[in-house]
Amino acid sequence: MDKIYDLIIIGSGAAGLSAAVYAKRAMLNTLVFERSFSSGGQIINTYEVDNYLGLPEISGYELALKFREHADKLGVEFENSEIIAISENEGIKCLEDSRNRKFYGKAVIIASGAGHRQLGVNGEERLKGMGVSYCAVCDGAFFKNKTVAVVGGGDAALEDAIFLAPICKKVYLIHRRDELRGIKILQKQVMEIENIEILWSTVVEEINGEDKVSSLRVNTKGNVYDLEMDGIFIAIGIKPFSDVFKDFVERDENGYIIADENGITSRSGVFAAGDVRTKSLRQIITAAADGANCVYSAEKYLKGLPS
Amino acid sequence: MDKIYDLIIIGSGAAGLSAAVYAKRAMLNTLVFERSFSSGGQIINTYEVDNYLGLPEISGYELALKFREHADKLGVEFENSEIIAISENEGIKCLEDSRNRKFYGKAVIIASGAGHRQLGVNGEERLKGMGVSYCAVCDGAFFKNKTVAVVGGGDAALEDAIFLAPICKKVYLIHRRDELRGIKILQKQVMEIENIEILWSTVVEEINGEDKVSSLRVNTKGNVYDLEMDGIFIAIGIKPFSDVFKDFVERDENGYIIADENGITSRSGVFAAGDVRTKSLRQIITAAADGANCVYSAEKYLKGLPS
Repeated sequence: MDKIYDLIIIGSGAAGLSAAVYAKRAMLNTLVFERSFSSGGQIINTYEVDNYLGLPEISGYELALKFREHADKLGVEFENSEIIAISENEGIKCLEDSRNRKFYGKAVIIASGAGHRQLGVNGEERLKGMGVSYCAVCDGAFFKNKTVAVVGGGDAALEDAIFLAPICKKVYLIHRRDELRGIKILQKQVMEIENIEILWSTVVEEINGEDKVSSLRVNTKGNVYDLEMDGIFIAIGIKPFSDVFKDFVERDENGYIIADENGITSRSGVFAAGDVRTKSLRQIITAAADGANCVYSAEKYLKGLPS
Repeated sequence: MDKIYDLIIIGSGAAGLSAAVYAKRAMLNTLVFERSFSSGGQIINTYEVDNYLGLPEISGYELALKFREHADKLGVEFENSEIIAISENEGIKCLEDSRNRKFYGKAVIIASGAGHRQLGVNGEERLKGMGVSYCAVCDGAFFKNKTVAVVGGGDAALEDAIFLAPICKKVYLIHRRDELRGIKILQKQVMEIENIEILWSTVVEEINGEDKVSSLRVNTKGNVYDLEMDGIFIAIGIKPFSDVFKDFVERDENGYIIADENGITSRSGVFAAGDVRTKSLRQIITAAADGANCVYSAEKYLKGLPS
């Protein structure tokens, strides 16, 4: 007879770890699946976090460690592998991992997060890691005194440009609109940095280079030209890691799992927390709150109470 | 000409302070009203907090200090007084404080929190501070080797009983139902502590005593009797601090301001965050998330964007 957990949590970012903390305190027999070799999800790639109340000016890496330590302190059980299939039989959810092992749970919290969206242009896939990057904090140091482009207009793109400016000779911020989307304080900083040049209303059509990026083909309102470039940082948003669940729970047109603030999805006993669910503001603090709310919903489900 | 703030935040608990942090980073000209002499709201009366992700096993007092320090680090402006009236004229919100001063804001976040619900029985008001308490952590030490009662069956009541047991000779936990509501881990602890006795299906009908509590008149399924008692800790839930706003925004039948996870209330430009709004789970982490969501909503409102 296989073990049946009260609760299986998929993901160990802020949402998954907060859920784990709440589940442990609710004394639910819980298992957390962690796909990467370290906890924290997208947080670990964040240079500095200054809006998680109570922990100002902390590196993303350090914050992720603190989150994991909290879960470890409470004795949370982790499994280091990826879920590749999910099904349900008589109310019991069956999860299959990449090593073809099966795990069973009465309730499931999907906190699988989201990742970087791709431009989808020629050269992007081929030159990944050879000048094409999705993480300025990770790869910025390789472009010392070089010319790079950041693509995007939101917080992530602005943060990347600000991070790269002191390292690189020149940073182009390439944005398809004539107005930035990121928060004001970041916009102001970007405007004040001398070696950042914004290319408004411009899209990248192709990434060129033999064994590394050499130039970008860009299009500014119909005017197409090549721009010499050593690297390109793509920061055009995120896409939810929800494909595994596509026939299991309802998703919106962007792939986000449809769920309210209590994490309730289209399937009874399955909850969605953090960046993977439909919501307005995807932040560490809102992900952590989701984790708490989902456990509260799961507890009610397990007790047979109305949600 | 009076100054008009972009945003006025009413309250400095987790919701208000998280909102302040987000508002400051959004470069909104912001003022925070704090009614008490210290920040943190209900948190400061919490003995230990172990479910705010990243800060395990911390006293409520210490957590509140960390929250306030974060806001101070970002240069948040505080006003130490209470809002007693609110109105609106041509989109500008006017707030009046207890010193009859007026403050103006384009947007307002109500994060006024909630406080202790009263039993509403004879003797309760008269003997407040003379054996009647709403805060075990604050007043428990006055009852060393005495006999006390905790009224309630939720997390707060269980935590109070656990906190009081090592201090007091005997702790009665008086609960009107035959089942506790609090989380399992606390229920288990309460059951294991020898000097806690649970009086099931019992209500307090009167609190007796001349200049201090001497006994409680209790009713167990129709059986009415007096129980000798030195103190009574009332932990039967909270009520929102929303009376000031009753003609300004819509509230539910319990006085909670009706607002969704984005904090949007019945009035344009007025948002509600934390314990004061309608929601399933009132926790520090969910209050802090609300603060972030409300600022995001306020930013959109101030820019004239759809919410």
